[in-house]
Amino acid sequence: MLFTQSSATAIIITAAILGMVWALAQFLLISRIPVKSEGISDSTGLVTGSNDEATTRRLTEIYNAIYEGAESFLRAEYRICAWFICVFGAIIFILVAWGTGWDFARGLFTALSFVLGACTSILSGYLGMKVAVYSNVRTTVSAQKSGWTLCFNTAFRAGAVMGFALCGLGIFMLYISLLAFRIHYPQAEDWIYLTECLTGYGLGGSSIAMFGRVGGGIYTKAADVGADLVGKVVHGIPEDDPRNPATIADNVGDNVGDVAGMGSDLFGSFAEATCAALVLGSSIGLSGGWDAMVFPVAVSAVGIFVCLLCSFIATDISTVKKEADVEKALKIQLISTTILMVPAVYFASETFLPGEFELRATVGLDVITLHPWQACMCVIMGAFGGLIIGLITEYYTSHSYKPVRELADSCKTGAATNMIYGIALGYKSAIIPVLVLAVVVYGSFALADMYGVSLAAIGFLSNLATGLTIDVYGPVCDNAGGKEFRQAQSIAEMAELEPYVREKTDALDAAGNTTAAIGKGFAIGSAALVSLALFGAFVTRIRHSSADELFQDGVNMLEPVTFSFLIIGGMIPFAFAAMTMKSVGVAAMEMVLEVQRQFDEKPHLLDANPTERPDYDACIAISTKASLKEMVPPGAMVILTPLLTGIFFGVYAVSGLLVGSLVASVQLAISMSNSGGAWDNAKKYIEKADADSDLKGKGSDIHKAAVVGDTVGDPFKDTSGPALNIVMKLMAVLSLVFADTFYAVNSGNGVFQL
Amino acid sequence: MLFTQSSATAIIITAAILGMVWALAQFLLISRIPVKSEGISDSTGLVTGSNDEATTRRLTEIYNAIYEGAESFLRAEYRICAWFICVFGAIIFILVAWGTGWDFARGLFTALSFVLGACTSILSGYLGMKVAVYSNVRTTVSAQKSGWTLCFNTAFRAGAVMGFALCGLGIFMLYISLLAFRIHYPQAEDWIYLTECLTGYGLGGSSIAMFGRVGGGIYTKAADVGADLVGKVVHGIPEDDPRNPATIADNVGDNVGDVAGMGSDLFGSFAEATCAALVLGSSIGLSGGWDAMVFPVAVSAVGIFVCLLCSFIATDISTVKKEADVEKALKIQLISTTILMVPAVYFASETFLPGEFELRATVGLDVITLHPWQACMCVIMGAFGGLIIGLITEYYTSHSYKPVRELADSCKTGAATNMIYGIALGYKSAIIPVLVLAVVVYGSFALADMYGVSLAAIGFLSNLATGLTIDVYGPVCDNAGGKEFRQAQSIAEMAELEPYVREKTDALDAAGNTTAAIGKGFAIGSAALVSLALFGAFVTRIRHSSADELFQDGVNMLEPVTFSFLIIGGMIPFAFAAMTMKSVGVAAMEMVLEVQRQFDEKPHLLDANPTERPDYDACIAISTKASLKEMVPPGAMVILTPLLTGIFFGVYAVSGLLVGSLVASVQLAISMSNSGGAWDNAKKYIEKADADSDLKGKGSDIHKAAVVGDTVGDPFKDTSGPALNIVMKLMAVLSLVFADTFYAVNSGNGVFQL
Repeated sequence: MLFTQSSATAIIITAAILGMVWALAQFLLISRIPVKSEGISDSTGLVTGSNDEATTRRLTEIYNAIYEGAESFLRAEYRICAWFICVFGAIIFILVAWGTGWDFARGLFTALSFVLGACTSILSGYLGMKVAVYSNVRTTVSAQKSGWTLCFNTAFRAGAVMGFALCGLGIFMLYISLLAFRIHYPQAEDWIYLTECLTGYGLGGSSIAMFGRVGGGIYTKAADVGADLVGKVVHGIPEDDPRNPATIADNVGDNVGDVAGMGSDLFGSFAEATCAALVLGSSIGLSGGWDAMVFPVAVSAVGIFVCLLCSFIATDISTVKKEADVEKALKIQLISTTILMVPAVYFASETFLPGEFELRATVGLDVITLHPWQACMCVIMGAFGGLIIGLITEYYTSHSYKPVRELADSCKTGAATNMIYGIALGYKSAIIPVLVLAVVVYGSFALADMYGVSLAAIGFLSNLATGLTIDVYGPVCDNAGGKEFRQAQSIAEMAELEPYVREKTDALDAAGNTTAAIGKGFAIGSAALVSLALFGAFVTRIRHSSADELFQDGVNMLEPVTFSFLIIGGMIPFAFAAMTMKSVGVAAMEMVLEVQRQFDEKPHLLDANPTERPDYDACIAISTKASLKEMVPPGAMVILTPLLTGIFFGVYAVSGLLVGSLVASVQLAISMSNSGGAWDNAKKYIEKADADSDLKGKGSDIHKAAVVGDTVGDPFKDTSGPALNIVMKLMAVLSLVFADTFYAVNSGNGVFQL
Repeated sequence: MLFTQSSATAIIITAAILGMVWALAQFLLISRIPVKSEGISDSTGLVTGSNDEATTRRLTEIYNAIYEGAESFLRAEYRICAWFICVFGAIIFILVAWGTGWDFARGLFTALSFVLGACTSILSGYLGMKVAVYSNVRTTVSAQKSGWTLCFNTAFRAGAVMGFALCGLGIFMLYISLLAFRIHYPQAEDWIYLTECLTGYGLGGSSIAMFGRVGGGIYTKAADVGADLVGKVVHGIPEDDPRNPATIADNVGDNVGDVAGMGSDLFGSFAEATCAALVLGSSIGLSGGWDAMVFPVAVSAVGIFVCLLCSFIATDISTVKKEADVEKALKIQLISTTILMVPAVYFASETFLPGEFELRATVGLDVITLHPWQACMCVIMGAFGGLIIGLITEYYTSHSYKPVRELADSCKTGAATNMIYGIALGYKSAIIPVLVLAVVVYGSFALADMYGVSLAAIGFLSNLATGLTIDVYGPVCDNAGGKEFRQAQSIAEMAELEPYVREKTDALDAAGNTTAAIGKGFAIGSAALVSLALFGAFVTRIRHSSADELFQDGVNMLEPVTFSFLIIGGMIPFAFAAMTMKSVGVAAMEMVLEVQRQFDEKPHLLDANPTERPDYDACIAISTKASLKEMVPPGAMVILTPLLTGIFFGVYAVSGLLVGSLVASVQLAISMSNSGGAWDNAKKYIEKADADSDLKGKGSDIHKAAVVGDTVGDPFKDTSGPALNIVMKLMAVLSLVFADTFYAVNSGNGVFQL
């Protein structure tokens, strides 16, 4: 050990605060860009006929419409979440207290950390949305100026605000709670209770993420699919036409779904991974002390330093000067942070972990002796596993490679072959990621039992700040640029800015799409490891509570109740995907009807110089209402299934349920995300083609077939696919929080005592 | 015990021979119908302007073309299978002999029963194809005569030939092998080896089924999708137009894919279920004697009696007199056989099982005492579970109910919403079948350990003769009727028979579609139970070989190698579906090119009275070549994965692999089959609608959107979906056959000793 015992606390708090300060600094840099069109006063001579003042007015108008729409949706969503937090917080308090033999402290601490996790998640999502909306318009303005650097940096910094604020805030809240609970549990023997109480934090983060992802996902896709269908089915106006009343709702959707939803999702992953690692490693405290136990948090903390350092590469050292630099810059971010994590993690493990420490194993041998290098290796395996999965995802979804080009070719014989090829592509794209996950699970488990798996999950998420930066970068450019990942309408296009602005934001956005696919690969891979680690923590906790009576020899698949719930668990992700996909369909159809009503009532909407203004708010209201209504059934299913299974059928049933849903979710999440991404990019590839090439280009029958694929892909990749991450994590963390409650019902055999 | 010890043998052999004789009798009844058009000489006055002699000539011409196409494909397919049987038989002999410490008898017996199973499967498929082609044309001829009874009975009897011949033959071969092997293993203590040798029979049946299903499935869908695409993409001719050169290939496909493939598939299920039950129940022989041990075979035998008796309800007691009777008659078959199985199984259990007998359990307690009622209940649970799953499948795929009507409505907003709703429908349709399976697994396991699960699987398949009858009935009417489940071209249509013939065969076919969906539900449900039972048998065998050293406490999911392979196993069905779907796409595209070539070279093909004849044979050759080439990679994957896993990573890895693939296969198979069926029927529902109704009817944009769904559904429901049944069963039976080999490699830890 190079430092003294208190060094972990110092580094963690420093990193957390640094993250938040850095986010603030980035925000201030963005806010210095005025919302003012300067295209004309600029003497490039590239543009003519525009009017700066009018353009500025329209930019501001659209900016306000989007901002208000997003704000009002989030307010409505968070009102529901607030009710949920109160009610479910009370349920947690009562059930956990009851499950621990009326240990009110544990019930209270768990409920408190649940509330804290939920609030942090809400704050993360809200913040992300605000920054994104705030930066969209400023990215557009920057694109008017000559040069690529400023424009790219604005979008990149918007991402960094979200990335660093979320990581800093997440670590800060979590660690402060740990320190606070430590006052009640000062002894290392009691730290298992301490970490168990903290699992509420993960549950809070994850359940809000669930509502954010599902609600936001339905919102954005209902508006998007609805707007597309209107254009095609009802009046033949182009996708991105501002005369279409659903356009602003679509734009709002990008901010609430892709930014707020994703922010909550990744915050949830981070919180759960940390909670799982702390529960699994709580026994380390006995031999290694506090610093060794909070090692997983310290890894995330050094991750902030690494990401912060590497971010200079993009903004200052190797700046973006031309179109080709954009994608390279983003990829360098991911690769450099992963590589730099190696020395950083080595430093953390050497500093905070004693040369030898003991871990109570989840399976098999009772106590195993570990060394820092083992913990370090687990984290590194996770980090590189994530990178590989991300790059594979890119291979299957970018039109630079064979799979998407083949998919584009399949459009020549119509929409049906496009669908068949696209679904097959998604299924196939799961092969290598699953093999990588299998190797990471096996390797990290072999090194440090289930604790190793949780460390690998932490490793996946160690460069979270960079991952989030790039993820948020996408939607910011998307809204700024117009020709985008989700067929949204661009601020640039709607405000009638000059074409060269559009070209620039398009290029920024295209690179964002590729990296967004990488980000999704990361998110799914980490979710799988986090779920497994949480499941391990669940088993550990049940073993601890039952004094090793239950799960003594692991979890036997051949127990009839376990096996029955294994196949039921495998069904859950399919049912969830079905519910969310259908919700998008239903909401999109409502949107179509509303737009048709507006066209019928305002016949002059479609004039070349319309004298009437479309009622954007009515469409926003429909998306809001539909998404909030539709997010409840799938959410309830995911939350109630493990709870009722545990209470009625016992802990063996729960273990089957969790593993079954994990196995099916991973495959389905990867394949749905990648099918969707590939369809989207195949469409773009065809759009880029010349009219006299063999792909015929925009407007041809081939393009129409590609649009069908893209529309089907929308709910695949932005609603159901990413929400499946949360399904597996949420079910696992819920079981972990209520583990004692389940055990309290007939010693873990459930009401029915099967 | 009501009878003496030898009664089981008497009943089993009697039933097997009766089944075969009955099939022959049905065949003779069909063959009495001459292939001769009698529409005109009939004095109904309904038709005018036809020429009997010319029609007869055309019927014969088409009949011969289909027959030759089917024959030549099967000959080519079986040639590959013959090579496979020789090579793999040798591998089995060597590996099993080596795995059992050079016990050449076991190696030889296993290899022999593999060859026997494979040959029986080939014979079943070939027979089925012959009967189907033979009966298509005769059903058409019967439809010319007045009245429904003869026409329905012809198609139904064609199904019965296949159903009873296959069941009779399957039981006969299997039981004769049992008796032959018994000469070498006369002692009850050795019967575990006897039953283990017999597992080769299941493997043989299943591997041929694999090639049949995949090869036939690719063949039929390549021709079908290809023919559709040509019509739509290239020349705008209707789907079922005889001027389209791909039509005969499509027709051949119906016979080789749906009849030969399905026959082999269900024979495989039957053989594997029986083998699993025999291995799991081999310990019963010690306390209950031979009759008690062969109880699973006896259940199948009494099933033949039950099915035979019930078949009179359809053909003689409550005959089909009008259109509405058809579906009712088929459903009554399924329900009556299931109900009548209750007393029959009770009789069998009271007759062949002693009042109390002992079973060596797979998990937990070493020996459990069973009573006949427990065995009886397991079989009955399986039989009724199958019926419920079948009826749920019907609910989700028939256009009499809400789901398909909703799907038809979704076509109003285009192909994309149709796709989204259809995929969601498939995913959702898995919920109840999975819950039913979970209850059956739990219930039967609770009653009689893993042996109970295998009995439930036998129960699922107890009315196999009826199930097969109805399954084959479908394609027979399909080819006869034209407006059909798989967009094939009808004999009736191509031979220009009178419209009232077409109406009649259409009605017969429509009922067949509904029951075909039920049959698929049965097949998938039974496959899940069979796979689980086979997995149980695998564990039992490994425990026996390792003297209880391995799997002592069941199969622990938390073992890192088991968990890693659990997610890899979950990936296999997705990879398999991807491969087979893409094969269909590739082969269909080749077909399109060939047809286009013919149209280019023979410009008069499309004239009203074409002077040139399309080259049907070239299309048949393409389908044959493509399907044989494309069936190898997915087949190799399914066969090699468990083999290599077992040898390199050991038995814990294999158990993870099997369970993972089982969990994912069930969901994917159900959802793919039902999505496909629902799309098909939604299209038909729209076709039935009037042009002025809100669904607009045939030729409208709504109909075009529905056709996209139907085309995507083709490989879903006829290639990938049903083949997934075989994936799970084949992997499990393969592991069972090579269990000793796996154990021989470093005591079951594999080459890598992970």
